[in-house]
Amino acid sequence: MRDFSAEHRWLSINTITLDRQGDLAAIIEACARHGVTAVCPWRHKVAEMGLDRSAKALRDAGLALSGYCRGGMMVADAAHRQAARDDNRRAVEEAAVLGAPCLVLVAGGLPQFSRPGSAPGKDIAAARAMVAEEIAYLLEFAETAKMPLALEPLHPMMAADRGCINTLGQALDLCEALDPDGSRGLGVAVDIYHVWWDPALAAQIARAGARRLQAFHVCDWLVPTRHLLNDRGMMGDGIVDIPAVRALVEAAGYRGYAEVEIFSEQWWRLPMDEVIATCIERHKRAV
Amino acid sequence: MRDFSAEHRWLSINTITLDRQGDLAAIIEACARHGVTAVCPWRHKVAEMGLDRSAKALRDAGLALSGYCRGGMMVADAAHRQAARDDNRRAVEEAAVLGAPCLVLVAGGLPQFSRPGSAPGKDIAAARAMVAEEIAYLLEFAETAKMPLALEPLHPMMAADRGCINTLGQALDLCEALDPDGSRGLGVAVDIYHVWWDPALAAQIARAGARRLQAFHVCDWLVPTRHLLNDRGMMGDGIVDIPAVRALVEAAGYRGYAEVEIFSEQWWRLPMDEVIATCIERHKRAV
Repeated sequence: MRDFSAEHRWLSINTITLDRQGDLAAIIEACARHGVTAVCPWRHKVAEMGLDRSAKALRDAGLALSGYCRGGMMVADAAHRQAARDDNRRAVEEAAVLGAPCLVLVAGGLPQFSRPGSAPGKDIAAARAMVAEEIAYLLEFAETAKMPLALEPLHPMMAADRGCINTLGQALDLCEALDPDGSRGLGVAVDIYHVWWDPALAAQIARAGARRLQAFHVCDWLVPTRHLLNDRGMMGDGIVDIPAVRALVEAAGYRGYAEVEIFSEQWWRLPMDEVIATCIERHKRAV
Repeated sequence: MRDFSAEHRWLSINTITLDRQGDLAAIIEACARHGVTAVCPWRHKVAEMGLDRSAKALRDAGLALSGYCRGGMMVADAAHRQAARDDNRRAVEEAAVLGAPCLVLVAGGLPQFSRPGSAPGKDIAAARAMVAEEIAYLLEFAETAKMPLALEPLHPMMAADRGCINTLGQALDLCEALDPDGSRGLGVAVDIYHVWWDPALAAQIARAGARRLQAFHVCDWLVPTRHLLNDRGMMGDGIVDIPAVRALVEAAGYRGYAEVEIFSEQWWRLPMDEVIATCIERHKRAV
């Protein structure tokens, strides 16, 4: 396993970690100042700054991207399906302009939550079938744009409203069905927060292999967790054996960034510099 | 599938649903008054009233039991292991005195949460291995006492602090390892709240079959869910297709109670009679 203890060459900051502290320009400036070499921007941050200005600012700062967050929310009723498709095609185009190595995809849950305004439903099997169809559709476009897609399984507590792909095994089943040998660029994003509990995790990471493992997200699971979305922990503050999971992805051949993605009311209240400094310190001793 | 629309013969009330409204005597009296035919008492309610008095009150009211909640919390460090074993043997004995058809088991998560005071750990695989050992130990005792054990997989959001058995597939693997043909009384409790999201649910319920399906718990999943433990929904208020899951367990041969188990700050604030009346109404039209 790579030694992270002496430097933070393989640290990437997902902009959601600093979502309330500043705009993308401020995040880029602070990351560069702290010697962070990569970020993963969210679409709303890029939209706020403008796509071309964002791309230029990232280039000028010498920052690499570890991904682009995010496309998806692919479950919709008939009236909202085309809008969802158009939206996801734009996300692929933006990722290409930014030079991202992949577009992270979050599947979406039931239609009324995935694409608000859609007729409500309770059929999660139908939602999953629709995700398979929509990824197949988007993959055609993404392949032409040479933009890999990284499907991110979400924690089962988010199955209804955010993502009905809930295990790495499910995500890999889709990858194998739509892109058997990985040559079309369909892979997965493994986020410790979503998958740490999975009894099949080690086997599924090995099954994924280097070609499918397009992104690796870290944070920690707190006990108690006080909110289903916005109470993720800083690495080392929770109960996940993060180095053990990193050992699994590296044993499978992953050599990319460890991307810090923390949704947290607590960390959003702290100054940007303090959060980045903490990410660097924890990257060295707890990842 | 059985028709529940005209009567509530197969409704059972888990006492946690009325945990803050009254003691066991009050719950028994109210259930009998509403024509509820079965309950599933929790240990703390029985302890408060006294074991023998509880057993007599249940008998005198003509109430059947759908289970006894709960044994488990089996993960502990060496210093707390014997106390956990003793506690679980007592739970089996109490279930027998009460005439329960099974003792529901919740595995426990990491040792520091499962048995407070235990040395902290992050090794969930070790916790799972310990659960297998401890169920094997308890099963010897429970078999002699002729008390079936119903292992309840818990939602993955509870993996760290409450239960590291998180899918029905995992629970059934344990059943098959320790009691291959089911003759020793090891089975499962299927709670909709914990398993509704599982893409393997239909296959695993079919795999379980009638002999392993010892209990069936219902409530609903709310969106948003505001608390990881105490924000479960009344049947029909959330997004789970409950009749579809009941159809699966009945197709597998289950003919027992639909037991309402709702941990909810909201429902705990309402009068006992209103909650029971709502359970009956929803049992008829949403289960």
